[in-house]
Amino acid sequence: MTATAAELALMQGMPPPDERLVTLANWQEGPFNRWAFQHVSEVVPCAVLGRGDGPVLPLPHALEDLDPLLDGFLERTYTDGFIVLRKGRIVFERYCNGLTERTPHLLQSVSKSFASALVGSLVEKGLVELERHARDYVPELWSSGFGDATVGQLLDMSASIVFSEEYADPASEVQAQDRAAGWRPRHPGDPENSYAFLCSLRKDGEHGRTFQYCSASTDALAWVLERASGRRYADLLATELWQRLGAEHDAWITVDSAGFGFANGGMCVTLRDLARFGHLMLNGGGVNGVRITPSPWVEHGRRDNTRLMADGDFKAAYPRGFYADKWWHTGDERGTFYGVGIYGQYVWIVPKSQLVIAKLSSLPSALDPSMTAAHHSMFRSLTDTLG
Amino acid sequence: MTATAAELALMQGMPPPDERLVTLANWQEGPFNRWAFQHVSEVVPCAVLGRGDGPVLPLPHALEDLDPLLDGFLERTYTDGFIVLRKGRIVFERYCNGLTERTPHLLQSVSKSFASALVGSLVEKGLVELERHARDYVPELWSSGFGDATVGQLLDMSASIVFSEEYADPASEVQAQDRAAGWRPRHPGDPENSYAFLCSLRKDGEHGRTFQYCSASTDALAWVLERASGRRYADLLATELWQRLGAEHDAWITVDSAGFGFANGGMCVTLRDLARFGHLMLNGGGVNGVRITPSPWVEHGRRDNTRLMADGDFKAAYPRGFYADKWWHTGDERGTFYGVGIYGQYVWIVPKSQLVIAKLSSLPSALDPSMTAAHHSMFRSLTDTLG
Repeated sequence: MTATAAELALMQGMPPPDERLVTLANWQEGPFNRWAFQHVSEVVPCAVLGRGDGPVLPLPHALEDLDPLLDGFLERTYTDGFIVLRKGRIVFERYCNGLTERTPHLLQSVSKSFASALVGSLVEKGLVELERHARDYVPELWSSGFGDATVGQLLDMSASIVFSEEYADPASEVQAQDRAAGWRPRHPGDPENSYAFLCSLRKDGEHGRTFQYCSASTDALAWVLERASGRRYADLLATELWQRLGAEHDAWITVDSAGFGFANGGMCVTLRDLARFGHLMLNGGGVNGVRITPSPWVEHGRRDNTRLMADGDFKAAYPRGFYADKWWHTGDERGTFYGVGIYGQYVWIVPKSQLVIAKLSSLPSALDPSMTAAHHSMFRSLTDTLG
Repeated sequence: MTATAAELALMQGMPPPDERLVTLANWQEGPFNRWAFQHVSEVVPCAVLGRGDGPVLPLPHALEDLDPLLDGFLERTYTDGFIVLRKGRIVFERYCNGLTERTPHLLQSVSKSFASALVGSLVEKGLVELERHARDYVPELWSSGFGDATVGQLLDMSASIVFSEEYADPASEVQAQDRAAGWRPRHPGDPENSYAFLCSLRKDGEHGRTFQYCSASTDALAWVLERASGRRYADLLATELWQRLGAEHDAWITVDSAGFGFANGGMCVTLRDLARFGHLMLNGGGVNGVRITPSPWVEHGRRDNTRLMADGDFKAAYPRGFYADKWWHTGDERGTFYGVGIYGQYVWIVPKSQLVIAKLSSLPSALDPSMTAAHHSMFRSLTDTLG
């Protein structure tokens, strides 16, 4: 059985004993993330993304009995929340491990897809151009590996950067980035904040040739958006996207010591609001007067980028798959695309079937190929059943 | 002119230059608090006090022109928000320095009065008795100065503790407490968290003889409430109080590395929700089916405690004044009582005139006698005008 945060008595005891204490050093890993992903603001400082005063995008119910299909899956995959929309109606919704309809849950790298939608808005306003270099907006990046990467390359993760995304490796750049962002305890000599960290990264090879999953590319992109708009990423995200989403609840984003919103992974949103995001993306960025990003931008994110994909787990699973504008595309005939975050966060969108599947989880480890396969398999089964 | 956070460009610049950077070391002081008191969760980790799904306590408008009376006062006193209720109707409401109706603002020691209301609920449930000692609930406090203080003494701040409340003195216990609570950068050898800090405090003289404003007494009280209820202070406050307040918005409380909600000063609430709290206290703890604390408890907090008051600024201003159950009483014929927090936070309640005045500010310094006098004087003038 998958123990809940309450069953594990995490953060209980006043003070909690060491083995139940969620800390800056352990909060991302299981079992501590069972509690932490629903209490991110208690571990890392967060800015509020206010929902504003606009109407909530309604999600009417059209429930179906999916229990036989899902039997065991939700528990086995450390689910915190799971929702399925078909044509904007909730056909299934489940809260586990203490999550409520009101609880913002960490998205990890699903956050990246929100950054993409924001780029669409700024491109439309003429504030950002995909062909320009990062250094044109952020002179401090000139001597970094990002300097001569284009905005488009940052979006497609085809900038070539010396960067290890090995989450469990203390010597990796991704852990160093966490430390600069306030996600892990600092080491002596660490860069002061995310900005300084980004400036410290070096180029690896030629940009634009190959997909390289480098989380920092999204943060470099966010810095570009800040300078292009003159506003903090958190403020930009709140006013240009979150307040236009028809969100039910405020969202959060973690911020570092310089107030930088951690674009690559720091957003926390409720299950339904994540589903709303998927629903809007499914419908070209807008529904019923609610619009989060221009329709042409959504189309742009669907262009075939398979030429960039190198061999690896993803290509093995999806030979026609690709990554574009911070979305993963399976290349299947249903047009499936998705955002995914470590430890089991998903927004899975199936245009042909008008389906959105959102899942929030607290898996024991960041990446587990068997867990990934189980998720993808279940999402396909749901699509077969409902589509 | 009193510059706003925006005019000061605090936290602007991506990254902000040093002189505009709000840090854990400077956030409480002016001018940095102009920004920080509306962005506490970006500086110190916070737990959410969810408002739940209940109805909002309505605050109808009955506006009056108080501008001539208030002329210059709001700006001169670094106001962020100011609201006046008469018989539960808004007669005046003003937002300044970027504060909105939706923005939780730090309460500092007004937080203490919320702790008091919570005690009332737990006393009614038989979970806490005022005559029992802190050590009866929290054995760890046995050898500390709080061990043989009664719950009632913690409420009235008549426990005698070696504790300097000199906010500007780096050697004071109040700054040490801030460091343990995550409110200031840690020093080597500091206690790990608020619990350890409380255990480290020593007794000064006999308890129960004299009022001693010692913020830590409220945190010791909160620890008692945690153990008496088996629940974290933040959770207790959310479910037993905030969800019963008819609040419009979620509130927050800062938490330390052990998850302890900083009871003496860490709450952040919106202006109207603070006014709602005052309105409920004015009406014996409840209005129209909304009740945050038992009516007898509100009466209990009005008993005459003047015998405890020693000479000082407060006694000079209010010879018949006293402190009881975490409320200040002026001893005037209108029954005025109030909660106050450093840097200009107030909820000022005038029972005879059915008035509640709430003010959120970001004054340059923690305590300024001339500012205190200006506030009290204005609150009396408002009472004369409206009462």
